[in-house]
Amino acid sequence: MKKISSYIIVPLLIAITFLFSNHIVNQEESESVLFPVEIAEDATPDVLARIKKVGDNPVSEIKFEKGTYHFYPDKGQEYFRNISNHGDHLIRTAFPLIGLKNLTIDGQGSTFIFHGIMIPFLVDRSEGITIKNLSIDWAETFHSEGQVVANNLKGKTFDMKISEQYPYEIRNDQLYFIKEYYEHTIGQSILYDPNRSAIAFDTESYTNLTTVTKVKNDFALDKVNYKYKADPNEPPLKWRGREWRLKVEPLGPGLVRVHNHGKKIPPVGMIVSMKGEQGINRVSPAFHVTHTDQFNALNVNVHHAGGMGLIAENSSDLILDNFNVTPSRGRMVSTTADATHFVGCRGKVVLKNCTFNNQLDDATNVHGTYQEVMDILGAKRIGIRSGHFQQLGFTIGRIGDQIGLVRLEDSFFPYGKLTLQHVERINSRYQILTFKENIPANLKPGDLIENLDAYPELLVENCNIGKNRARGLLISTPKKTVIRNNTFHTEMEAILVPVESSHWYESGSASNLSIIGNTFQDCVHSGQNRGVIRFVTDDENENIAFTDIDISHNQFNQFDNLILEVNNTKGLSFEDNTIRNSGSFPQLFPENPVIKVKAAQDIRFDSNQYLGKAKTIIESDQASRNKSKLVFQ
Amino acid sequence: MKKISSYIIVPLLIAITFLFSNHIVNQEESESVLFPVEIAEDATPDVLARIKKVGDNPVSEIKFEKGTYHFYPDKGQEYFRNISNHGDHLIRTAFPLIGLKNLTIDGQGSTFIFHGIMIPFLVDRSEGITIKNLSIDWAETFHSEGQVVANNLKGKTFDMKISEQYPYEIRNDQLYFIKEYYEHTIGQSILYDPNRSAIAFDTESYTNLTTVTKVKNDFALDKVNYKYKADPNEPPLKWRGREWRLKVEPLGPGLVRVHNHGKKIPPVGMIVSMKGEQGINRVSPAFHVTHTDQFNALNVNVHHAGGMGLIAENSSDLILDNFNVTPSRGRMVSTTADATHFVGCRGKVVLKNCTFNNQLDDATNVHGTYQEVMDILGAKRIGIRSGHFQQLGFTIGRIGDQIGLVRLEDSFFPYGKLTLQHVERINSRYQILTFKENIPANLKPGDLIENLDAYPELLVENCNIGKNRARGLLISTPKKTVIRNNTFHTEMEAILVPVESSHWYESGSASNLSIIGNTFQDCVHSGQNRGVIRFVTDDENENIAFTDIDISHNQFNQFDNLILEVNNTKGLSFEDNTIRNSGSFPQLFPENPVIKVKAAQDIRFDSNQYLGKAKTIIESDQASRNKSKLVFQ
Repeated sequence: MKKISSYIIVPLLIAITFLFSNHIVNQEESESVLFPVEIAEDATPDVLARIKKVGDNPVSEIKFEKGTYHFYPDKGQEYFRNISNHGDHLIRTAFPLIGLKNLTIDGQGSTFIFHGIMIPFLVDRSEGITIKNLSIDWAETFHSEGQVVANNLKGKTFDMKISEQYPYEIRNDQLYFIKEYYEHTIGQSILYDPNRSAIAFDTESYTNLTTVTKVKNDFALDKVNYKYKADPNEPPLKWRGREWRLKVEPLGPGLVRVHNHGKKIPPVGMIVSMKGEQGINRVSPAFHVTHTDQFNALNVNVHHAGGMGLIAENSSDLILDNFNVTPSRGRMVSTTADATHFVGCRGKVVLKNCTFNNQLDDATNVHGTYQEVMDILGAKRIGIRSGHFQQLGFTIGRIGDQIGLVRLEDSFFPYGKLTLQHVERINSRYQILTFKENIPANLKPGDLIENLDAYPELLVENCNIGKNRARGLLISTPKKTVIRNNTFHTEMEAILVPVESSHWYESGSASNLSIIGNTFQDCVHSGQNRGVIRFVTDDENENIAFTDIDISHNQFNQFDNLILEVNNTKGLSFEDNTIRNSGSFPQLFPENPVIKVKAAQDIRFDSNQYLGKAKTIIESDQASRNKSKLVFQ
Repeated sequence: MKKISSYIIVPLLIAITFLFSNHIVNQEESESVLFPVEIAEDATPDVLARIKKVGDNPVSEIKFEKGTYHFYPDKGQEYFRNISNHGDHLIRTAFPLIGLKNLTIDGQGSTFIFHGIMIPFLVDRSEGITIKNLSIDWAETFHSEGQVVANNLKGKTFDMKISEQYPYEIRNDQLYFIKEYYEHTIGQSILYDPNRSAIAFDTESYTNLTTVTKVKNDFALDKVNYKYKADPNEPPLKWRGREWRLKVEPLGPGLVRVHNHGKKIPPVGMIVSMKGEQGINRVSPAFHVTHTDQFNALNVNVHHAGGMGLIAENSSDLILDNFNVTPSRGRMVSTTADATHFVGCRGKVVLKNCTFNNQLDDATNVHGTYQEVMDILGAKRIGIRSGHFQQLGFTIGRIGDQIGLVRLEDSFFPYGKLTLQHVERINSRYQILTFKENIPANLKPGDLIENLDAYPELLVENCNIGKNRARGLLISTPKKTVIRNNTFHTEMEAILVPVESSHWYESGSASNLSIIGNTFQDCVHSGQNRGVIRFVTDDENENIAFTDIDISHNQFNQFDNLILEVNNTKGLSFEDNTIRNSGSFPQLFPENPVIKVKAAQDIRFDSNQYLGKAKTIIESDQASRNKSKLVFQ
């Protein structure tokens, strides 16, 4: 009834306010607001005006009459945002859900089409936010696609046909794709196989296209010095010593020939996805959720985003149910980075009944963040440095959190703990932390810190994960994790369980992890020599990183041999699994065993069925053999 | 005495706190703080820590023991800043003088050397701030210089010798100058004559170097559409349709040959200043003063800045006394943009006893800002749009200010006025203004607004202005303005009095302007055909823009004929001036008259002395002749 009454009020108000050429919708206090399709041409100003009044005029539900709504950035609220695993810059939004409590946004089946560098839903310092029944898409994409229509294996060239969906110009032999408010070069690229609507088999042999090479002439660069540690991955340092290698020749309208590619020449029929240079190509995620408790997304489709589908930081209790990342309008690519990603979250993270397809990075990644101790500033104060330029401005946690002190060369687990009392943000790279207790005498610059309280329990259930670049699930939480009844068809590992300190500064070692009843269909078809499930650290030692792992009742239908890689693990049970050779693709590493074990203990196999082609089932080091009965059964 | 007592306390505190590897200086309540040279290696963290405590521990004076202090950005306080006439981005500072009252910073003759993208003095929402007795420089510059050591007029090439002060690499035939935290291409360039340590005569025939040309191949760009007005000058739109034209060939260490320059080939001996692409090359002004009353800079030298020496916005009563912009360490260039610049300021602006030399833009520019009416949103509300991308986020004024409504095709003066009641910043391009009164019925989208209360009185006295690119003074304030006893040796106009609405959106028409007792020595030696003093509008009509002008007792020592251009002016008296031909350079426009008059009235000449070479003294249109007795005497 509320819906209907709102619907009746709205057109009247619109009529009244039409003279002022801006629609004003239901300004009085109400439990429900309904936006009519009349605002669809550019819904930004009306929606924004209402959201900004929620404080004075509370509303529990904002609904949209079913329709297709455009959101332009021109009249969107602007914020400078540090966005984990994205670039940090000005974004605009019509939905600044900041400091709100118990609000539901219900699209009622509507499609929201965004233009330019916008964050469709910016959720910050809120509680009890639900977004449901809507689809998100962009008018112009942050990536571009071209189909290989001819190639010349001798001359090492290939020709791409590019549709009018992806306008471009050629500057000094380089392709620049032109969007409304954005442009990008070839940059990071990968092949899609249109027959499978998925990443092409063995794409790593063909891509990335070798866009850059080393500069041949420089002068006096040794005079450019740094007092403090500099990050060579952060632009503009990232551009140093690099120049374009590929040359793009125009053959006709929408037809170009690519010269000088250094890997295998892509086959005719494949579709090349191009998304511009790493470091500047993640600008516009669909959801950015920060410092928020109880966030729900229900029946939401994300067809595209210039970055991730959802990136959540420092939040708790996030439930995504029937949250689907899938491409639209004949595109191969959905989001240009991860479908979902959770940093420093706590409580529960639930992904159920979701589809994560065709995105250009992982389906999800759940982790904390290492930061590096830079200065000891007093008995209770330290200066810390963000290690990765896409974690700038990240807040380590909440007052009262337990902060672990870590020296990875000694142990993956903290050697000490301190209670966070105060965070002073100096800049996005450098912060000063104050603790309740005195810092221990052995803390020294170069040590890492992690937040021991900011890891969530994780459930991933009944999800369809695949056709995407990179991994399925990247799991770095020590809290109870259940991966159940999902299907995987991923280019790289289906499930990667890492400790990655040295490049990504992503913290957290899995323990209490169950992988149950899933189907793994032809994963790791990238061309890489990796297991479908892989436990790995990037530190070369034999310390234990992962504990208490259960992998059972899964189906592995793989074209190649290697299924499981176990490193630095204590306590892993592999039971009631069935492994088949699918025959879907040629084997790339026929000499591989099924299972590799290293620096591990208490590894157990029971009641498994092997129907594959490998000659060796388990390959292991002596230390692991001493500490487990490594017999496949 | 205070100074000495601080000096004694400081080393003790340093000794005590040394163990914590950060110096803490004089934290107790005090009238004066003295920083010792011990902090000089990186003064940022100590200075910043003290400044951030000024609220709790007030201080009226912060002094520095005389020395050379380095300021690195790594531990500097970070802000996202909209900076008028610069780029908008993250900057870092050790001196965030925000919300402070009655504070003096006294360098006592020290030199402050900055590194990277920093704003040495960020002054915001403060009152009674004085900066004195210090020099500002940068370790690595935001521009680069190369000397022409050979050329080939037939082959149309020239060779540049580049010192180790300006490290570079060549990427795909393009020069990239590499700095600690920055890089730039050739971009905007100009010639300096090292014999005169000034901009080279007739540089416009040689520069800018023709770095870009039109793209030859594009596809489907007509599919890239905009719902609202887009700004073609704002990156990335600015890059469209352009590609590199010059080719740079390495000849040896620090020696490059430049091919394909489309203007005259620069002569051997000249120094080419290069500062990167317009639109992204103004990142780091020395002073940014906003919303501040009573700002004083006394005995300050600015040897460099990656932008302006001082940019002030929305501030009042600014006095620069012996504020000198001059190059250091053998460089030709001082600041890479204007020496000083005042936008929307009020009260008094005083520049006295200053030197503004060798900067890459005007000595000063005093103006308001036009913004464009985009939407009529209600009886008292309008949506406005910033016209120029380097005015984004500019606040039109203070509550209670009189806002003028302007339609330039009708008049340079406002057709209506409204009282500002509220500003809602939606984004840096779009704001919503609410007025006390109802807006008039004839206000329509496309009209401009200007703040009638935000213009200052201006005094420029005893200043040495010259050797710089571009103009001396750009004056767009209707308040009383006195330009007295200065010397000018500028590349373009010494004094430009404009109304420039269509490109720069800089508002304000001069009236009550006195130009008295100045010496103009060989100005407009750029090669441009312009007057030394020039009144001009960019709107093609005969409306009056400028009134009540007095030009008297000046010495014009010019190599060429044209001295004065008067357009759209009512009431100008030119008295007791002496005009000589200096013979310094060849005449470029010998056919020119001395004075050009157009669309003017009440123009008067008396008691002047002409000792030049022009055959015609006054050239004018009939309308002006009808309304003035245009006889030079």
